[in-house]
Amino acid sequence: MYQLTEHEQEREPTGRTRTVKLGYVGGGSQGWAHTLINDLAQCPDLAGEVALYDVDHDAAARNAELGNQVTDRDEAVGDWTFEAYEEMGDALEGADFVVCSTQDPPEETFAHDIDLPEEYGIYQPVADTVGPGGAVRALRAIPQYRDIAATVRERCPDAWVINYTNPMTVCTRALYEEYPDINAIGLCHEVFKTQELFAEMAERYVDGADDVSRDDVEVQVKGINHFTFVDEAHWRDHDLFEYLDEELERRKPLPGFEPGDMDGESYWVNNQQIAFDFYDRFGLLGAAGDRHLAEFVPWYLDIDEPEEVQRWGIRLTPSSARVGDDEGPDEMEEYLSGDEEFEFHDSGEEAVDIMRALLGEEPFVTHLNYPNEGQVANLPEGAVVETNAMLTGSGVTPLSAGDLPEQVRTLVDRHVTNQETLIEAGFTGDLDLAFQAFLAEPLVTIQRDEARELFAELVETERDYFGDYDLDANVLQG
Amino acid sequence: MYQLTEHEQEREPTGRTRTVKLGYVGGGSQGWAHTLINDLAQCPDLAGEVALYDVDHDAAARNAELGNQVTDRDEAVGDWTFEAYEEMGDALEGADFVVCSTQDPPEETFAHDIDLPEEYGIYQPVADTVGPGGAVRALRAIPQYRDIAATVRERCPDAWVINYTNPMTVCTRALYEEYPDINAIGLCHEVFKTQELFAEMAERYVDGADDVSRDDVEVQVKGINHFTFVDEAHWRDHDLFEYLDEELERRKPLPGFEPGDMDGESYWVNNQQIAFDFYDRFGLLGAAGDRHLAEFVPWYLDIDEPEEVQRWGIRLTPSSARVGDDEGPDEMEEYLSGDEEFEFHDSGEEAVDIMRALLGEEPFVTHLNYPNEGQVANLPEGAVVETNAMLTGSGVTPLSAGDLPEQVRTLVDRHVTNQETLIEAGFTGDLDLAFQAFLAEPLVTIQRDEARELFAELVETERDYFGDYDLDANVLQG
Amino acid sequence: MYQLTEHEQEREPTGRTRTVKLGYVGGGSQGWAHTLINDLAQCPDLAGEVALYDVDHDAAARNAELGNQVTDRDEAVGDWTFEAYEEMGDALEGADFVVCSTQDPPEETFAHDIDLPEEYGIYQPVADTVGPGGAVRALRAIPQYRDIAATVRERCPDAWVINYTNPMTVCTRALYEEYPDINAIGLCHEVFKTQELFAEMAERYVDGADDVSRDDVEVQVKGINHFTFVDEAHWRDHDLFEYLDEELERRKPLPGFEPGDMDGESYWVNNQQIAFDFYDRFGLLGAAGDRHLAEFVPWYLDIDEPEEVQRWGIRLTPSSARVGDDEGPDEMEEYLSGDEEFEFHDSGEEAVDIMRALLGEEPFVTHLNYPNEGQVANLPEGAVVETNAMLTGSGVTPLSAGDLPEQVRTLVDRHVTNQETLIEAGFTGDLDLAFQAFLAEPLVTIQRDEARELFAELVETERDYFGDYDLDANVLQG
Amino acid sequence: MYQLTEHEQEREPTGRTRTVKLGYVGGGSQGWAHTLINDLAQCPDLAGEVALYDVDHDAAARNAELGNQVTDRDEAVGDWTFEAYEEMGDALEGADFVVCSTQDPPEETFAHDIDLPEEYGIYQPVADTVGPGGAVRALRAIPQYRDIAATVRERCPDAWVINYTNPMTVCTRALYEEYPDINAIGLCHEVFKTQELFAEMAERYVDGADDVSRDDVEVQVKGINHFTFVDEAHWRDHDLFEYLDEELERRKPLPGFEPGDMDGESYWVNNQQIAFDFYDRFGLLGAAGDRHLAEFVPWYLDIDEPEEVQRWGIRLTPSSARVGDDEGPDEMEEYLSGDEEFEFHDSGEEAVDIMRALLGEEPFVTHLNYPNEGQVANLPEGAVVETNAMLTGSGVTPLSAGDLPEQVRTLVDRHVTNQETLIEAGFTGDLDLAFQAFLAEPLVTIQRDEARELFAELVETERDYFGDYDLDANVLQG
Repeated sequence: MYQLTEHEQEREPTGRTRTVKLGYVGGGSQGWAHTLINDLAQCPDLAGEVALYDVDHDAAARNAELGNQVTDRDEAVGDWTFEAYEEMGDALEGADFVVCSTQDPPEETFAHDIDLPEEYGIYQPVADTVGPGGAVRALRAIPQYRDIAATVRERCPDAWVINYTNPMTVCTRALYEEYPDINAIGLCHEVFKTQELFAEMAERYVDGADDVSRDDVEVQVKGINHFTFVDEAHWRDHDLFEYLDEELERRKPLPGFEPGDMDGESYWVNNQQIAFDFYDRFGLLGAAGDRHLAEFVPWYLDIDEPEEVQRWGIRLTPSSARVGDDEGPDEMEEYLSGDEEFEFHDSGEEAVDIMRALLGEEPFVTHLNYPNEGQVANLPEGAVVETNAMLTGSGVTPLSAGDLPEQVRTLVDRHVTNQETLIEAGFTGDLDLAFQAFLAEPLVTIQRDEARELFAELVETERDYFGDYDLDANVLQG
Repeated sequence: MYQLTEHEQEREPTGRTRTVKLGYVGGGSQGWAHTLINDLAQCPDLAGEVALYDVDHDAAARNAELGNQVTDRDEAVGDWTFEAYEEMGDALEGADFVVCSTQDPPEETFAHDIDLPEEYGIYQPVADTVGPGGAVRALRAIPQYRDIAATVRERCPDAWVINYTNPMTVCTRALYEEYPDINAIGLCHEVFKTQELFAEMAERYVDGADDVSRDDVEVQVKGINHFTFVDEAHWRDHDLFEYLDEELERRKPLPGFEPGDMDGESYWVNNQQIAFDFYDRFGLLGAAGDRHLAEFVPWYLDIDEPEEVQRWGIRLTPSSARVGDDEGPDEMEEYLSGDEEFEFHDSGEEAVDIMRALLGEEPFVTHLNYPNEGQVANLPEGAVVETNAMLTGSGVTPLSAGDLPEQVRTLVDRHVTNQETLIEAGFTGDLDLAFQAFLAEPLVTIQRDEARELFAELVETERDYFGDYDLDANVLQG
Repeated sequence: MYQLTEHEQEREPTGRTRTVKLGYVGGGSQGWAHTLINDLAQCPDLAGEVALYDVDHDAAARNAELGNQVTDRDEAVGDWTFEAYEEMGDALEGADFVVCSTQDPPEETFAHDIDLPEEYGIYQPVADTVGPGGAVRALRAIPQYRDIAATVRERCPDAWVINYTNPMTVCTRALYEEYPDINAIGLCHEVFKTQELFAEMAERYVDGADDVSRDDVEVQVKGINHFTFVDEAHWRDHDLFEYLDEELERRKPLPGFEPGDMDGESYWVNNQQIAFDFYDRFGLLGAAGDRHLAEFVPWYLDIDEPEEVQRWGIRLTPSSARVGDDEGPDEMEEYLSGDEEFEFHDSGEEAVDIMRALLGEEPFVTHLNYPNEGQVANLPEGAVVETNAMLTGSGVTPLSAGDLPEQVRTLVDRHVTNQETLIEAGFTGDLDLAFQAFLAEPLVTIQRDEARELFAELVETERDYFGDYDLDANVLQG
Repeated sequence: MYQLTEHEQEREPTGRTRTVKLGYVGGGSQGWAHTLINDLAQCPDLAGEVALYDVDHDAAARNAELGNQVTDRDEAVGDWTFEAYEEMGDALEGADFVVCSTQDPPEETFAHDIDLPEEYGIYQPVADTVGPGGAVRALRAIPQYRDIAATVRERCPDAWVINYTNPMTVCTRALYEEYPDINAIGLCHEVFKTQELFAEMAERYVDGADDVSRDDVEVQVKGINHFTFVDEAHWRDHDLFEYLDEELERRKPLPGFEPGDMDGESYWVNNQQIAFDFYDRFGLLGAAGDRHLAEFVPWYLDIDEPEEVQRWGIRLTPSSARVGDDEGPDEMEEYLSGDEEFEFHDSGEEAVDIMRALLGEEPFVTHLNYPNEGQVANLPEGAVVETNAMLTGSGVTPLSAGDLPEQVRTLVDRHVTNQETLIEAGFTGDLDLAFQAFLAEPLVTIQRDEARELFAELVETERDYFGDYDLDANVLQG
C-alpha cells in the first residue's frame, strides 16, 4: 500500500493546511511545552489552536504568551493561537490531539521517592518508572490519568492522546483502563540513543557508510518502556547486529569503571555498559539509558554506597537535582520580556510527524507505547508494551515483534504484573494490593517488614496525593 | 524511523544499481514468468541473472529466449540475462531471490479435482485452495515444496523465496516446515480488488475524492489466503468502513441473481455478493473473490445444479477451462518469431517493489502470507496467515492485526487446523490422517462413507502424484 | 488424602443423618422428579424438605403428594417432607441443593424445532442440543436459567445447583454467566453407556473378568455434553483401550445397516456405530449415544429421506413422540389413588451420591459438566466442558483430562464458540448475533438465505417464548 | 466411578497378592531405603523383588542384607527378596516400579553449595532446591536423571518411576525431557505439615472436631515443589480457610522472633511464620516448610548475619550438618549384627499406597509433582508442578487446581523459567545459558560481576561433577 522513504528532517509539505485543536494537559511545563512551541512553529501544513491547561494556571498562561509571541515571528510558518484555560475540560473541548506532560511538585513527592528508599539502602538512579519510587509515583498518577481519560471521553472522545509522562506504561495503561476506546499512545526518546549507537556502529564497521543518521537505522524494539530491547538492527540491508560481538569486546570489561570515575560527569551520563551487559548475558541489547535499565533488575544497584553505581558508568541523580533551581523560569522571563529571543531548533521530537501521520498526511513508522494486541506475542494482551508501529490516517498499527526469549520475558513479565497490579490498586484504592506490587519490585531486596515500613512511610509522607486511596489499609498499620 | 509516501507507479530510482540473481521454479509458465520479464525490464535500479527451472525444460528455454529478447530492446532499462537450467539446484545456486510458480499438468490433476467431487454433488468454483480439490492439491504440492525448501537450504540459504503457487497457505507453510530458517513469503492479488472497491466507495461517498487509486486505500487485512477479511479501511484519514452499511443497502438483496443470469459472463465474474454477505452477517468484509470465499463455508455451494451458484453472481469454472487450448503457446511463437512484439505494460504486480524493499532500497508496505508470530493474535502461532507487513532491508515485519471476532475465528480456525493436518500428513505420508482433514472440509457435507470413496478415488486417479504417500492406508481400502 | 473404593450400590451409612432442603425447579416433571423421590426414600443418612416449583403448579402439587405418600411407607428409610410452592423464590429459600429439570411445552416448541427444519431438509434425531432445534431451544432456555441463577443468588447463594435440562451446556453456562459465584454442575447419563460398553469388552477380552460392573470401569472423559470422548479406559490396571481395534473389526462395516433395518426398533435404538466411526477415523471413542453424536457433524445426517439415517443404526424421533400421549399422567393417578404402588428401584442415578459427597459424607468421582478451569487444556477457559471430577465436602474438583487432538478439538471448538455466542445473544437479546451461531451449526448446510428463512420462521412460530429478544432484528426482516 | 473413603492407616487387603519388581536407584541410602523396607514388610498384598543399585555398591549390599533380614521376621507380612546390583540397568531390568533417591557426596558438593554463596553474603537455609545452591545441584543432577530415564526406556519402559530426590522439580522434569513417555512422579512430604496445621485448626475452631487426622483434611495444592500454596482447605464440609484470619492474628506479629531465639532449636525448626506471611500478603498459605519458602523470594533472607534469619523462626543448616557424622552407619552395623532390632513403625510415607493404587488395587488421592497438562492453568504446559492427583490402575490424573493469582503466578513463574532454562542448559551442556538462570535466582541480589565469580567458583570447585558441560563457557572466563 505504501512505499516508504527514509526519514529526512525536511518534511514534504502536502500543500494542504490542516487546522487542528491541541489540548495540552500539563501545559505549564517548561520542557515539552517549549519543544512543542518550537516544532509547531516550523510545521508548514498545520495550524490552529493550542489550549493549555495546568494545575499551575500562571505557568500555562506564561507558556501561552510565549507561544503567541513565537508564532507571530516571521520565521514561524505555522499559524497558531495559544490560550491557557482554568478548567481541563474546556481546554480539551473538541480537541483533535491531547498532549499530556504532567508532574507533581517534586519537592513534595519525587524528592521523597528518592530519599526515603535510600534510608533503607535502596538506591535509584531515576526513581520515576519502577522501584519504590516508580511504584509510588504510579499510584499517585493513576487517579490523575483516570481523570484525564474521563475528560477525553466527555469532551473529545475521538482525539488522539499523546502521553509523555512517567511512569509511561502505567499512565498510558490507566487511560485505557478508564476509557477503553481512547486513542492514546505513549512517546519516549530513549530508543533514539540506541539508534544513534547503531548509526555509529554502521560508520565504524560497514564499508562506505558515512554520515549514517539515526533515522536511517531500523531497529526492532520489544519490551516495556525503559526496559525494552533490540534484537535486530539494519542499515539498508546491512545487518548491524552482527557487529555487536566485536563492539562488545571493544567495550569490555563490564563493568569498566571504579567508584568515583563519574564524579565530574552529568547526572545523565550513560556509557551503555548495562545495555551491553544485557547483550552479553541475554543476547538482546538493552534499548534504554543504563540509568533506567539498572532499576528493573537487582544486579546493578545492590550497592552499599551511592558512588558504587559508578562502576557501571552511571550516577545517581540526587533529589536536590529534581527540585528547585532549574533555569527555566529565568529563561522564560527573558523570552517574555524580549531580552532573549526564543531560538528555533531541530528538536528531534516526533510529535508533529505523528500528528501529521494520524491526520493522513504522511505515513510514519516509529517506536511507541501501546496496548499489546499481539505485537509482543508472549506478553499479556492489553498490557502497554513498547514496539515499533506504523501511524497513518487509519491510526496506529503496531509492528509484530514476535516473542521475547524466555529468560528476558520473565524479567519483563514481573514488571507487567506489577504494573497491572498497581492499576488495579489505583482503580480500587487498595493499598494492600499495591503493596504486593511494591514487594515484588526487584530493587526491594530488603526484609519484608522493612519493605512494609518504607511503603507506609512513603504513603504517609505524600499523604496529600493519596486522597483516592483507603488509608485504613492493613499495610499502613503494621 | 520512516516516513512513508503513498504508493505511486513511478519508482524513485536510488541511483544505485543492485545486481542480483533470481531463481525461478516453474519458470516455464506463461503467466507469472511473462509478468516478471515485463516488470524487471522496466525497473531502473536492478540488474542481473534470471535462472529458469521447470519440469518442462523446453518451456523454460523458450521463456529464457523471450526474456533475453525483451531485455535487449531499447525501451528495457534493466540489464538482465535469462537462462534455463536442467536442474533446480543449479538454477537456485547462490540466488538472492527465488520465485515459485508451479502447477501439475491440469489434465492429470486439476481436472479430476473438479470433476470427481461433482459426481458426488460437490461443486467447487475454483478447487485450488480448500474443498476436496484444494485438499488433494495440497497433498500433491507438499512433497514438491519440501524439495524446493531443501534445495534453498543447500544452495541459497539466505535467499528470499516468493511463492505464487496455490494452495498458497499450504505451499508456504511446507517451505517453513522443511526449513524453518527460510525467508519466504506468499503473494496473492485477491486483496487488490478489495482496495479497488474501497477506492470506488471513496469516490462515491467522500466529498472531493476523485481518482482515488487502490494504492491510496489502506485496508487492515486479517485471515488466511483466499479467506481473509478487512475490518478497517481508510483513505487519508477518512474512515471508509463507515460507508459500508450504505453500500450494502445499495447492493441488496443478497443473493441478487437467478440461476442463468451469469450464463454469458466470464468464468471469473465477481459481484462481491458473498464478500458483502459476510459483512452483513459477521461485520467483516470478505477480502477475496467470491469464487474463493464461497469454498470456505457450506452456505453458498449447497446446490443441486451448477447454475444455482449463479444466484450469488458467480460461475463455476469447468475443468475444460483449466485444460488445453489456452492461447499462450501461439502468442509465444509470435513473440519469438518477431511477428508480434512483447508489449510493456503496468502489471500491477508488486514483486519488484518487494525485491527492492528487501534489498534495502525503499521500504514497502503490502499484504502477504507469512507465519503467524502474533499478527493475528487469536490464530495459532506458526500457521501461515495473511496480513499487512512492512518490507525493508531487515526483512518482513508483519503489522499487528489484532483478533478475529470469535465466530469468524472459528470459521477460519477449522481451515488452519485442516492445513496443519495436511502438512503433517504430507510430511509423514499418512493418508488416514489426511482424510481427517478432508472430512472436515466444510464443502464435504456428503455421507461419511461417500466421503471416503471420493477421497480414495481422487488418490487412485492421481496415483502418479502420490508417490510419497503410504498407499496401504486404511482409508484407501474402504 | 483419600483412599477410594470401587463404587458399590450399597452406600456405607456414616451414622450421621444430615438434614437438608432441596429446591426443585421443574418439580412437576414425571421423569427426574420420580427418580428423585425413589432415590431419596432409599438414602439412609439424608432427610429434610423437598420444595417443588413448576410453572404447572398442579403437576408439582401432585408430585408433592406422591413424595409424601412414598416417604410414609415403611420401606422408605429417609424422612422427607414434600411441598409444592407457587413462587420459585419461596421454593429455593434457604435451599442446600437446587435441582433443575425443566421443559417448555413440547407441542408449542420442541415439535416445531424438529418439524420446521425437516421442511428444509434438515433431519435431527434429537434436536435438543445442537442443530437448528438445539440452537432455538438454547435461546428459549437462557432467559429462564438466568432467572433461576438470579433467584439462587438472592435466596440460597451457597446452594449446589444440579442441572439436568438440555441443552445441558448452555443452561449450565447461563447459570454461571448470570451469577459467577454459583455452585452449579450439569449431570447427564450418556457416558454410563460407554462405561457399560467397556465393561462388556472387559468380560470379552480380559482373562478372568466376569461380572464387571460399569462402575468399576474408569474412563477418561473429555469434550462437551453429548459430544464427548473417551481416550483412556481401564478396569483395574487393565488397559481396555487396547482392545478397541479388535472390537472395531468385530463391528465393521460402518455403516452396517440399510434404510429400513431399524423400522421396528425403539426411537432410542443405539448400535454405537457412530461412536466407533469416530474411533476409526479420529482415534477417540465417541462417548454419547449415536443419536446425539450425529448432530455435531454433517457426515451422518446429510440424508434425503428420514429412513436413510438407519444405515448408522439409529432412528429419528418424530415430533409426535415428543408430544402428548405419554403414560405419565395415568400412572400418576394410579399411584395417588393407591391403585398402583410406586415401586422402589435402583435408578442408577448419581444425584444422591453427589449430594452426600458435597455434604462431606463420602467422596465421589464421576463425570459432569462444569466450567473449564484447565481440565480440557485446549478448550477455552470458562466454557462448560464435560470431564471427570471429584466431589467432596470442599466442592467440585475437575480431573485434568489434557488436550483434545487438534482435529477433534476443532470439531468441538466450533460448538463451544456457538454456545458462547448463543449465551451472548441470549443475554443481550440480539437475534442477529444468534443467527451467526445458527448459521455455523454443522447441520445447517442449506443455502444462506434459506437458513435465514428457517431461523426467522422458528422464532416467529415460537414467538411467545422470545419475549426477551429484540424482534426487530434484521435477521427476522429478510 | 468411585466412592472414596477417608484415608485410614490400616489398608483394606484385597485378598489378591500382587508380585512386583522394584528397582531402587540410590539404594544405598539410609533414609528412604529404610523407610521402604519398613513399609513393604507391612504391606499385606504386595510381594516380589527389590533390586538395589547405588554408586556406593557396598551401601546397597548392606541395605539388601538388612532388607532380607527384616523380611524374614515373623511380623513381616510381605514376601520380599532384596538384592544389590553392580549395574543400574540390571537393577531396573523388567521393573514395575523404580524408586530414585540419590545424592552426590555432600562433602564434595552440598557443602560448597552452602559455603561459597555465604562468602558472597547469600545465606540459604537449605540450598537444595533454588538459590545458588539449588541451581548448581540441578546442573549436577540433570545428566544423572537423563541417564536414569534412558535406562528406564531401555530396560523397563512401562515402569512407574517414583522420584524423591531434590531438586525435585528439575529431576522429575529431566526424566520427562529425556524420555517423554516415561511414567514418573515426584513425591515430597512438605505438604503433610500443612494438612497437620489445618487438622489442628479444625480442632481449635470447629465445634465437635476432635482427633482430626491430617489425612482427613483436604487441601487444594497448587505451585511447584517447595514453593506451593493452599487456597482451599476443608474438613468434611467445613471450610477451614475461613479460620485463617483468626489464626493469623493469633500468630502475629510477623516476624515474631529476635536473632538468637532459635539458637537451641533443631536446624529444622519451623514456626510457619513465612507460610502465614504469604497468607497475610497474598491470600494463599505457603504449603512448604518456611526454610524452603524463604529461598524463593528475596524478602526473608536479605540478612547480614546468619542469626538474623531467626527473626522468622527458622535457622540456617550449616554445611557441617550435611556432611559426615550422621548416625546411620553405626545403627546399620547394629541392625546387621543383630545387636539392635529394626523396629517397625508407621512411616507416614505414601509410596506403598501409591504403588497399590497404580496396580489397580485401591484408588488414592494425594499431592505430587507431575508435568502440567492444565492442572495449574496459568503455568506453562509441560513444566513440572505440584498439585493433587488421583492415582488408579489407569495411572496418574491430576486434579485441576485452576489459576494462581497473578502476583503469585509471577513469583512462581520466574522459577519455572529458571528450571526450564537449567534443563536446557543441562541437556546442551551450556553454562552460559545456565548462568542466565543463576542470575535470575531471587536470592542472587549481589552485583552482576560478583554473581559471575560465584558461579564460576562453584563450577570450578565441583568440577568433577561437571563433566557433561562445556567448561570453555564465557561465564567461566570472566
